Amino acid sequence: MNVQEAINKLNELELQEFAYGHAMGILSYDDETTAPRGSRIPRGKTMGVLSELSYKLSTGDEAMRLLDQLKEHADELSEEDRRRVELRDKRTREMKAIPVEEYVAYSELINESSNVWREAKNRSDYKMFEPYLGKIIETQKRFAGLVRPDMDPYDYCLDQYEEGLTQEKCEEFFKTLREHIVPLLERVRSAPPIDTSFLSTPFPISDQRELSRKLMEIMNLPKDNCVIGEVEHPFTTGFSKYDVRITTHYYEDAFLSSMYSVIHEGGHALYDLHSDDRFCFTSLEGGISMGVHESQSRFYENIIGRSREFVGLIYPELIRLCPKLAAHSVDQLWRAANVAEPSLIRTEADELTYPLHIMVRYEMEKAMIKGDVNTADLPGMWNGLYKEYLGIDVPDDKNGILQDSHWSGGGIGYFPSYALGSAYGAQLLAKMREDFDVREAVRSNQLIKVNNWLEDKIWKYGSLYKPAELMEKAFGGPFDPKYYTDYLERKYTEVYGL
Amino acid sequence: MNVQEAINKLNELELQEFAYGHAMGILSYDDETTAPRGSRIPRGKTMGVLSELSYKLSTGDEAMRLLDQLKEHADELSEEDRRRVELRDKRTREMKAIPVEEYVAYSELINESSNVWREAKNRSDYKMFEPYLGKIIETQKRFAGLVRPDMDPYDYCLDQYEEGLTQEKCEEFFKTLREHIVPLLERVRSAPPIDTSFLSTPFPISDQRELSRKLMEIMNLPKDNCVIGEVEHPFTTGFSKYDVRITTHYYEDAFLSSMYSVIHEGGHALYDLHSDDRFCFTSLEGGISMGVHESQSRFYENIIGRSREFVGLIYPELIRLCPKLAAHSVDQLWRAANVAEPSLIRTEADELTYPLHIMVRYEMEKAMIKGDVNTADLPGMWNGLYKEYLGIDVPDDKNGILQDSHWSGGGIGYFPSYALGSAYGAQLLAKMREDFDVREAVRSNQLIKVNNWLEDKIWKYGSLYKPAELMEKAFGGPFDPKYYTDYLERKYTEVYGL
Repeated sequence: MNVQEAINKLNELELQEFAYGHAMGILSYDDETTAPRGSRIPRGKTMGVLSELSYKLSTGDEAMRLLDQLKEHADELSEEDRRRVELRDKRTREMKAIPVEEYVAYSELINESSNVWREAKNRSDYKMFEPYLGKIIETQKRFAGLVRPDMDPYDYCLDQYEEGLTQEKCEEFFKTLREHIVPLLERVRSAPPIDTSFLSTPFPISDQRELSRKLMEIMNLPKDNCVIGEVEHPFTTGFSKYDVRITTHYYEDAFLSSMYSVIHEGGHALYDLHSDDRFCFTSLEGGISMGVHESQSRFYENIIGRSREFVGLIYPELIRLCPKLAAHSVDQLWRAANVAEPSLIRTEADELTYPLHIMVRYEMEKAMIKGDVNTADLPGMWNGLYKEYLGIDVPDDKNGILQDSHWSGGGIGYFPSYALGSAYGAQLLAKMREDFDVREAVRSNQLIKVNNWLEDKIWKYGSLYKPAELMEKAFGGPFDPKYYTDYLERKYTEVYGL
Repeated sequence: MNVQEAINKLNELELQEFAYGHAMGILSYDDETTAPRGSRIPRGKTMGVLSELSYKLSTGDEAMRLLDQLKEHADELSEEDRRRVELRDKRTREMKAIPVEEYVAYSELINESSNVWREAKNRSDYKMFEPYLGKIIETQKRFAGLVRPDMDPYDYCLDQYEEGLTQEKCEEFFKTLREHIVPLLERVRSAPPIDTSFLSTPFPISDQRELSRKLMEIMNLPKDNCVIGEVEHPFTTGFSKYDVRITTHYYEDAFLSSMYSVIHEGGHALYDLHSDDRFCFTSLEGGISMGVHESQSRFYENIIGRSREFVGLIYPELIRLCPKLAAHSVDQLWRAANVAEPSLIRTEADELTYPLHIMVRYEMEKAMIKGDVNTADLPGMWNGLYKEYLGIDVPDDKNGILQDSHWSGGGIGYFPSYALGSAYGAQLLAKMREDFDVREAVRSNQLIKVNNWLEDKIWKYGSLYKPAELMEKAFGGPFDPKYYTDYLERKYTEVYGL
């Protein structure tokens, strides 16, 4: 087999892996959006079978022989193909370290656990979810030990979502954020309060659906490749650049909730929709990491979406759909959309206090994986950290430890990437401004300029580069959280007239 | 390997086949209900890969050795396991006769063709769909020749949907129907017309959704295992007895359309939801044939749903949701729901003229498979047959040859099972009446009695028996279309007071 034949084989193998991932992705999406409760039984069976078959395909003799051959000829490969081989090498080494039965049992556990979490959250009953969380933590620790016995287990978890991220980096990053956010938040809280009462003006859900369509149009999300679904907890799932699904949840008396959710998920979708064509159905298609993904979603949600210019752009549509809002000016709406106030729910948190929510979860995860805390004591730890970091009391587990879906789906190590993504976004903004007037582009409904810039710097590369490498190329230098703290300082000074 | 080990292997193999079928089923369901247009590209790839892998699994050396071993030990197997072996033997023989590349190419053609048909129907542009239909016909003929060179190709098509059904049986069956329906329809048409104008009373779609929920409740469709989706062309898809999806389409000015669609699809769903537990995830789960399936759906839609008692049962709910309907009595509504009148669209046709729509399709399919007609001439043939059988002019292809999705999905030979199913249903009714007062059960909202009877005679058996065998057991004797023609005669005499 010559190198070209080996690449052809690789293409075929990756297409098969894509197919399994696509099928399992659709099963999960269907679960979240449509499926009846009883479907968990057949879906559990199917997920078990497909993950086993997919595992065997990726780690079987044929795939491993192909990998060895490609590695031997690494210097004859194109940059892209070398990267594919590198990614495969890393992934298959990880997979082979985990026995197939454990891999399958884990995927069945996750299917079950997501359903139990949903029910537990509805009932605000942590005890119901606790044994599943316990098993997930144990499995994550065990997998970390099997795959990277040389690595700290929580560092391994972080690395799963943002290659190269470690606790050391997180500690330093969060320390910088705390040093800026805590005093800034104090100043904000001593400023005259901003009126937000009109944000609960009833906005019929059918009209919010129309608002979503308008937002997708403004963001240049192509209708033929991106649809919006309704779920309890919004998320985005990209099956390929031809088919990305965003989701939202409408609350009649909180229209900003869905509006910013759509913009956030739309940011994720744009990233997935713009991988270079040549990466289609290969391991290079789609976003490289959760940190980079969140940099795009949070960039759109906060930096673009909560800017005075964007609020001004969407304002005529808002008052058309909900005429009562016309009693308030663009300026009032913009300030109200940027109120900073410690609160219970991460996904509803403002830009300034948001990182504090992440820090709570970071401390929780660290303790869970280190084994410093018993699962029975986790709600107490959660509530204590909310008191310490945000100064608020958590009334129940529904509004506390059960609020997020991540852990129930095995996502331990994911949260820090949200904060990192926000910081990436602020540094991207600074760079973007060197090339064109971003405020003017938003004001004049030319978000296509923002899209084109991000496509050129980030999106088109898919998974070709490691996250830090990709971001450094885009920044033209190293990552520096100062851009983020400066941005927050500037923004909140303006919003509150400090 | 002893027999028990072989059965364990068979269970494992069938579970894997179930998983592939489930995944492909969800992909199709998602396509029909949710997916953006562009999704056809990745879905085509994934369907191609999964159908190839599934084909190789079912026909590979290991599966064939297992089958041989089980056949050798057939006399040591239970009735169920013997039937599974028989079904597998038939199915794998069919699959092995078709080269894998052709099998995969065909599944990709179907994915593409369904999308093209949808578009062609919207535009009423038969030319757009014609090349796909041509390829589907050619492929069906080729597969028939490969699998059963001893059999007439259209008989092979019929047998795919109703094992044992042949053109000879169809001709005789349709002849009997024509002999009764044509004169009965003439008598009906000479009777005083029934007022149907109020059937277009505007009925808001949100209220129709509530009506659907009520209908599902009356039919005892379990919410945890059955949800309703909204699509252009209603269908039912059962993934397992734990998860069955029905669908409908709401028209604000034709509430009966969705109402009877929900009852029809609900009948399919009940059948799939009540296979015996021990058949779960094996080839015996779910309905045996399309004829038997249609016997259940059309039994609920017409025999139950269009009975005077059912209309009386749903009437209070109808006038609660749409108060204007209260100007008309139960009797008026019942008559209006049973008006017999030649019309263009099969799915909207009344019970009496419905078989004539089927006969048109039967003649078309026979000619297509025999090669008696060029694809370019099919719309002309369709329109000619509508004139001949129903006496009406077809204005365009959207309301003509493009109205049904079946052919675009490769379903040639399916249609006759609708008419056969109606006749099965009438004979089941006669038998059911020997055991309890069916009218009284419906009148008193005790459809559970009907369900229990059908579960006991039909549903619980899944695919354990061949269709004709199953029906004869339920009938306690041979199939006789006289029950159907007697039923029609009785019903229309009553509706029109002949």
